[in-house]
Amino acid sequence: MNAAPPLLGRQFGKVVRHWRRQHRWSQEALAERADLNRSYLGEIERGDAMPSLDTAAKLARALGVKLSELITFCE
Amino acid sequence: MNAAPPLLGRQFGKVVRHWRRQHRWSQEALAERADLNRSYLGEIERGDAMPSLDTAAKLARALGVKLSELITFCE
Repeated sequence: MNAAPPLLGRQFGKVVRHWRRQHRWSQEALAERADLNRSYLGEIERGDAMPSLDTAAKLARALGVKLSELITFCE
Repeated sequence: MNAAPPLLGRQFGKVVRHWRRQHRWSQEALAERADLNRSYLGEIERGDAMPSLDTAAKLARALGVKLSELITFCE
């Protein structure tokens, strides 16, 4: 069994899910805007995958927020 | 030839190198503090590798700065 991803990964997933729901977007809609695979977005939101900085930046851009701002919600 | 990593990766590498030099640390010293492989740190600093959020957070913690703050220098 893989070790649970560090706290930051789980926290980042929750923050992305929160912002997505603020927009009333489905995972499909956000994944498309962020040019990501829908199932990978689901893994990120559940904290099961640790995104790269670049993927995190794509999500922030799609959500209309600066990556640094999104990260502050994880700290 | 691999496509050059996105701008964020190169920018993040420069910022890490700058903060490391502010501390007058070698790459070995920072890699050890961040529990990272020295050559991988070199790749990150050169912008040849795109770190995960977790690796970026380890570097920020080792440098004594919040990850969100480090990211602001990349935006």
